[in-house]
Amino acid sequence: MGERERDILKEIRARAGRGGSGLLRVGIGDDAAILAVRPGEELVVTTDFSLEDVHFRRGWHPPEAVGHKCLARGLSDIAAMGARPVAAFVSLAVPRELTRGRSGMRSWPRSWTDRFYDGLLALAEEWSVPLAGGDLAQAPGGVRARVAADIVLVGAVERGRALLRSGAHAGDALYVTGTLGGAAAELRALVRSPARFRGMTTATAEHPHFFPEPRIGLGRALVRRRLAIAAIDISDGLSVDLQHLCEESGLRAEVEAALLPVGRGATLEDALHGGDDYELLFTADANARVPRSIAGVPVRRVGRMLRRQAGRPRMILLRDGRQTELRAQGWQHF
Amino acid sequence: MGERERDILKEIRARAGRGGSGLLRVGIGDDAAILAVRPGEELVVTTDFSLEDVHFRRGWHPPEAVGHKCLARGLSDIAAMGARPVAAFVSLAVPRELTRGRSGMRSWPRSWTDRFYDGLLALAEEWSVPLAGGDLAQAPGGVRARVAADIVLVGAVERGRALLRSGAHAGDALYVTGTLGGAAAELRALVRSPARFRGMTTATAEHPHFFPEPRIGLGRALVRRRLAIAAIDISDGLSVDLQHLCEESGLRAEVEAALLPVGRGATLEDALHGGDDYELLFTADANARVPRSIAGVPVRRVGRMLRRQAGRPRMILLRDGRQTELRAQGWQHF
Repeated sequence: MGERERDILKEIRARAGRGGSGLLRVGIGDDAAILAVRPGEELVVTTDFSLEDVHFRRGWHPPEAVGHKCLARGLSDIAAMGARPVAAFVSLAVPRELTRGRSGMRSWPRSWTDRFYDGLLALAEEWSVPLAGGDLAQAPGGVRARVAADIVLVGAVERGRALLRSGAHAGDALYVTGTLGGAAAELRALVRSPARFRGMTTATAEHPHFFPEPRIGLGRALVRRRLAIAAIDISDGLSVDLQHLCEESGLRAEVEAALLPVGRGATLEDALHGGDDYELLFTADANARVPRSIAGVPVRRVGRMLRRQAGRPRMILLRDGRQTELRAQGWQHF
Repeated sequence: MGERERDILKEIRARAGRGGSGLLRVGIGDDAAILAVRPGEELVVTTDFSLEDVHFRRGWHPPEAVGHKCLARGLSDIAAMGARPVAAFVSLAVPRELTRGRSGMRSWPRSWTDRFYDGLLALAEEWSVPLAGGDLAQAPGGVRARVAADIVLVGAVERGRALLRSGAHAGDALYVTGTLGGAAAELRALVRSPARFRGMTTATAEHPHFFPEPRIGLGRALVRRRLAIAAIDISDGLSVDLQHLCEESGLRAEVEAALLPVGRGATLEDALHGGDDYELLFTADANARVPRSIAGVPVRRVGRMLRRQAGRPRMILLRDGRQTELRAQGWQHF
């Protein structure tokens, strides 16, 4: 590790300990972080890559958005378990030149790497998640080197109460949160005109592709109020993630096209397959009274879970009174 | 994710759940893994990159050794905390062609990726650590794409008993485990003649550079028998990691050259600065009776911790009756 990496780590360490639910006993600076655990709780752990030219492009995405989304990916998994986040770890491999400010001076203007951590730590602060560790390395490959970030999230949830993909029952109603397809629509606009999005650095609800909001509060409410039975996050797209839910629960599903909350500028195809939405898909008992809004996020019933039947497709789309097979079509990486 | 990646994940999932201390409730297949926690325990979490051309070379290191060492890096951090491993997560980005067997057939001969997991899972089985999740992605960069692996280890340790870098006291005796410099010596031999090491696929104690053995059993014994006060793993080299211990504990240290357990083929310089050894450096009360061997691993007293003094160097090397400053010199990555 070079001097510049050490300087960056020192700065991160100073900023990283803030907030947190008090479960982090030892953070950055030892061989490992130490987490205390409350009695009656279980831990959940998830890890996700954010790779340049796969999940983002350096020329298209401001570093703050890359950092934000890197953490949001992990937080969304924690939300889908109904857990609260306890600590985050990020391993970052960056080409050497991205650790330097543009003027060549140490700290001004801020480097790509500084700005990546700015975006990540701003979201971490919003949810009071301490950055408890990670790794910082020079990416190999010289001028062709690509950024690789791996996010690890540790969360906690009441014992036996985590929302599993495998928990759904035949007859459950199927719900989604927020709106769908908005991220795909924004990505399309970005591909058409990257210049329009240059320099964007603030998180607003209007940029689902750049600054997705993980549904942490909603996930917690689903567990605390015992509303949901099974859940999954739909970052890969509704059709792909619903298929996972069906497979893990041994069921099939029916989705009503007219009920889908299609986002601004998005098509039905975007909503079904667009992906990158970081909303939750969950099931609840058919007789449960599920509010139209939970933790400030709209919730919509969009279909139901059914017993598997030989010869019938895993997933069906009801549209204009007709049934068609709904096929899983994932989000296409760059 | 392509079809080949899905096939690989399916195979890994089938192999990954084996072993484990019963704390893993849900492994691969949900948004996150779920870990139960025993009353009175804390969790430790660590993450480490293994990057092609930084930590290994594809032309020099068999994929089994890369997988083995990837996990060993994480296990060594767990050992340095005195914890037992509970679950491992590995995120792997590989160039597309490394997911294919050489003949182009699906499963025979085994691909680089299959063999990476072979090496990793063999060591995981040795220590009964379930692989509880992770990520598998195609590395960006086309023909110039490099392998990036990030290992996450979760461990458990009795509350308040983890061995910290910051725990050492002035007057403590300083110990190291195993031998030092052997990995650096083997790396030198590898650089000189890569062909000599081609095709090596089995883990033996004689290949510290390719197949390091994490000191899990020894770390646990240090905690259970209350032998150690502070500890750190010395994967970056004795001089670098001793400096960390000094900084975190606010002390200085004195090392006696004649006491260092220099490994086969290694020089004193290798032992001091070579790195990549995955041994433990720990402190114990000067009056404690520390056995010469713990959990089958030799343990040697090599120096002592001292109060800081203005104008005196952080670290001193005693050699042939003379004192010289010991400067931190890390292991040089490729």
